[in-house]
Amino acid sequence: MNKLDPALQAWRLLLGPARVLTSPADLEPYMASTSASPVAPLAVLRPLSHGEVVAVVRSAGEFDIPLYPLSTGRNWGYGDANPSREGQVIVDLGGMNRIIEIDPELAYAVIEPGVTQAQLAARLGELRLPLWMDCTGAGPDTSLVGNILERGFGHTPYGNRMLHVAGMRIVLASGDTLETGFAHFAHATAAHLYPYGVGPWLDGLFTQSNFGIVTSLGFWLLPQTASVSHLVASVSQFEGIAPVVDALRPLRMDGTLSSVVHIGNDLRVLSGGMVFPAALVPQGPPLPQQLRADFCRSAGIGAWTVSAALYGRPAQLADARRALRTAIGKLATLRFIDDRALAIGSVAARLMGRASLGAKLSAQVDLGRSLLNMNRGIPDGRFLAGAYWRRRGGLPPGFPFAANPARDGCGMMWLAPVLPMRGVDLLRVHALVAPLFAMHGFDLFETFSMINERVLGGVLTICFDQEDAAEVLRARQCYEASFARLMGAGYIPYRVGPQSFKALDSGHDTYWSTVARIKAALDPQHIIAPGRYQPR
Amino acid sequence: MNKLDPALQAWRLLLGPARVLTSPADLEPYMASTSASPVAPLAVLRPLSHGEVVAVVRSAGEFDIPLYPLSTGRNWGYGDANPSREGQVIVDLGGMNRIIEIDPELAYAVIEPGVTQAQLAARLGELRLPLWMDCTGAGPDTSLVGNILERGFGHTPYGNRMLHVAGMRIVLASGDTLETGFAHFAHATAAHLYPYGVGPWLDGLFTQSNFGIVTSLGFWLLPQTASVSHLVASVSQFEGIAPVVDALRPLRMDGTLSSVVHIGNDLRVLSGGMVFPAALVPQGPPLPQQLRADFCRSAGIGAWTVSAALYGRPAQLADARRALRTAIGKLATLRFIDDRALAIGSVAARLMGRASLGAKLSAQVDLGRSLLNMNRGIPDGRFLAGAYWRRRGGLPPGFPFAANPARDGCGMMWLAPVLPMRGVDLLRVHALVAPLFAMHGFDLFETFSMINERVLGGVLTICFDQEDAAEVLRARQCYEASFARLMGAGYIPYRVGPQSFKALDSGHDTYWSTVARIKAALDPQHIIAPGRYQPR
Repeated sequence: MNKLDPALQAWRLLLGPARVLTSPADLEPYMASTSASPVAPLAVLRPLSHGEVVAVVRSAGEFDIPLYPLSTGRNWGYGDANPSREGQVIVDLGGMNRIIEIDPELAYAVIEPGVTQAQLAARLGELRLPLWMDCTGAGPDTSLVGNILERGFGHTPYGNRMLHVAGMRIVLASGDTLETGFAHFAHATAAHLYPYGVGPWLDGLFTQSNFGIVTSLGFWLLPQTASVSHLVASVSQFEGIAPVVDALRPLRMDGTLSSVVHIGNDLRVLSGGMVFPAALVPQGPPLPQQLRADFCRSAGIGAWTVSAALYGRPAQLADARRALRTAIGKLATLRFIDDRALAIGSVAARLMGRASLGAKLSAQVDLGRSLLNMNRGIPDGRFLAGAYWRRRGGLPPGFPFAANPARDGCGMMWLAPVLPMRGVDLLRVHALVAPLFAMHGFDLFETFSMINERVLGGVLTICFDQEDAAEVLRARQCYEASFARLMGAGYIPYRVGPQSFKALDSGHDTYWSTVARIKAALDPQHIIAPGRYQPR
Repeated sequence: MNKLDPALQAWRLLLGPARVLTSPADLEPYMASTSASPVAPLAVLRPLSHGEVVAVVRSAGEFDIPLYPLSTGRNWGYGDANPSREGQVIVDLGGMNRIIEIDPELAYAVIEPGVTQAQLAARLGELRLPLWMDCTGAGPDTSLVGNILERGFGHTPYGNRMLHVAGMRIVLASGDTLETGFAHFAHATAAHLYPYGVGPWLDGLFTQSNFGIVTSLGFWLLPQTASVSHLVASVSQFEGIAPVVDALRPLRMDGTLSSVVHIGNDLRVLSGGMVFPAALVPQGPPLPQQLRADFCRSAGIGAWTVSAALYGRPAQLADARRALRTAIGKLATLRFIDDRALAIGSVAARLMGRASLGAKLSAQVDLGRSLLNMNRGIPDGRFLAGAYWRRRGGLPPGFPFAANPARDGCGMMWLAPVLPMRGVDLLRVHALVAPLFAMHGFDLFETFSMINERVLGGVLTICFDQEDAAEVLRARQCYEASFARLMGAGYIPYRVGPQSFKALDSGHDTYWSTVARIKAALDPQHIIAPGRYQPR
């Protein structure tokens, strides 16, 4: 007999039966998979406190049952809410959603894994604090902690999120509680202000790993600046993006561009406003060249769109705009969006009425407002639209309210190569994957983001129809072929889904044997998420 | 019989006899100690390559002899070149001083542990590259890698050095070579551009620890800006520093002050230009109040001096100066130093001749040039002068050439509490330690540096006369009492010397048991620096 039944009994005693889920109907939502490869959990536990997590982990050790922790389970495109393997019990931390502390003076919050982007943004608004939270485009319902532990990136000067975290609280497989930074010292005054602490800096260990369950962390908030402006630069020709990247690099390095700069291709932008036009193209993707050109022309979308936020005092912004015009004014069409421009656009759109031009302007104003909001830490679900490109039936009613690409059945896989911040590398990455996407019959959505001062983080999306078995198979083949080709050329991903954990290990790499030794030291029974970022 | 002799024999075969030091005369320099508690090594090995380090570590394991790695051995005030305990063989990496790579476009260098500040600065100058290196005040001969691995701080926008490192190469106790970030992937294009890699981020493990021997790392360089200006702000009254800290905090947070801001008390500044006037004060420290006031008045030194560098385009600097004047113009006397001001000052000083005022101005111009140079990555030994405060005979002839406070017999211990970036905390830390320094008869040198956007890193120095046994004893008592009082109040140090490793552990702290488990997993024989940042 397996040990699951006595374990479940113990957990029911501990958490109450309502927070131990085992029925197929209750487990089904956790199996939803954007990659069309659902993995079933044995059960789902919903602890509500650090102490309950400790108790859950202790009994998992006792009964030798592996756990798979989730924050809110919205790791779309990288494994969703699925356990890393069969035979694991999900620990859903979504109910642990306390904002434990907000310090207005030193500008940080201490949050639990269930705290969503919308929740913290709302709290900051209610308290009328002059602080912004870094925000990703993954929508209002996603977990901040979950994204940070996957080393995700946002849109503000704090977009390199890993660098704006201090003081983690972690439940180890032994059930012991580890506090990092200075947080483990009594009365520490800088527990959430100085990440390193004294002695080895351990925080990095608990990102993209399976060494413990983080139950809270300190997350720095961005003091509001007097002004925010959003740059949208359009590059008309495909190869034209290379000199733009090279001209922007010095400005990203010297802090003129202090936030994450996003560069999207035409399809990326287009997919924010429409789904694949199946009626016009019954044979399926890719979108024919002529049609793609027509759509882009009518929406005013260039081959590439650069999107970046500027922050500061008015004089700083004026200087930054000048520097940007000097750098790329001849290479791209620049527009700067701010509150004033939006207000004018809004009035103009209303005056023009419902006619075509007025509607187009109105849509642009809406998009501009969403971008500007995101720069100020207000999440927006609209940026999830691209995931629905190949979904039959398109965007669900009420979109983006409660949008969930996994549960909505979107087919999507992400390739996320990191490349030197150089135009030549962007073109090379494109040249490596474009033929593979074409061969397998997929549209190639490309974003290249200046996630730090020296690299572009690529996100190349394969969108596919989950209801078409042949297309699912082709998507996997396209993913595998592209992944292998990028790795072979030295463009290593910053993040992967479970399908690629093994492929990260050449088999004779001391990095992965070191990871395995640390795992064995901290979790000899392999209780926490076995297999996750752990090829051996 | 011990296993040292066969081990030495093996190392002599490996390195040649000239790079295996065992004579008392050869070992003596490594025992020099600013804390007057020298620890003798068993021997000193001088490998010249990564491969030799691997071989040394392998044979150390075979003969079960612990090693203690040094970069250049200038960890003054925090253990100097001394092993962490008796019975260890020093591995002096000073001869591994290759600058392996400099990438002018993506602005980084790959360096070995023996590369000094002066060496990299000189190379950048020779190559006429528009790049600056981050620089500390510890002088030209100090190791960059050594300082980074101790998580030291410099003076530029890259002064939080740990955040500007990517791709470490490490020899583990097993003799295996671990490469972090993307460096362990074949042909990785971003090996030194993106610190995290994919999977757990391990770099932090190898700072303030004993888990491996770092033999090279990628170190980011700062693209030169059009202008640099140095702010010197003088605060006349002691309590006047509190509102200045609070007024500068928003400017540090929003990046107007992008570099590390240093705030020194009068004694800190004074000790840069003179040693303790033993002839005037035969009874020894502390310096009598009246005399201290007289010296400060004649040198024009206020109770506190704020020192910070501004970088950018001329318009950015003008805006930053305006913002600083608005923030603290009424709280402090502001001066901005740039090349033009120095040139004018230099001419004026020459015109005034050798008279008192001319000499004073000339000294100020020299100091300003040193500060401005340091902001541009040109190291200067003059900032070591403070260490000589209680040295009999004062500054050695030729100072600062080849200055080495340990070998020069300076007595010095550092307390380095981290505190929230608030005026009230600065005053509280002062109030905690000042009575203890007074009671034990020491001058209190204080620096508080804005090492990130939310904390002050304090450096409180006890300078003592190593030739006076009673003063040495009092210095230790002062250190212990101050350390305990700061810890008790929650002001935890960012860095400590060997005398305080044990005091960091309450005995029931999961952080330190986790560190011990990782150590046991990576170095079960305790070959590498046993005891270093390892209380258990």
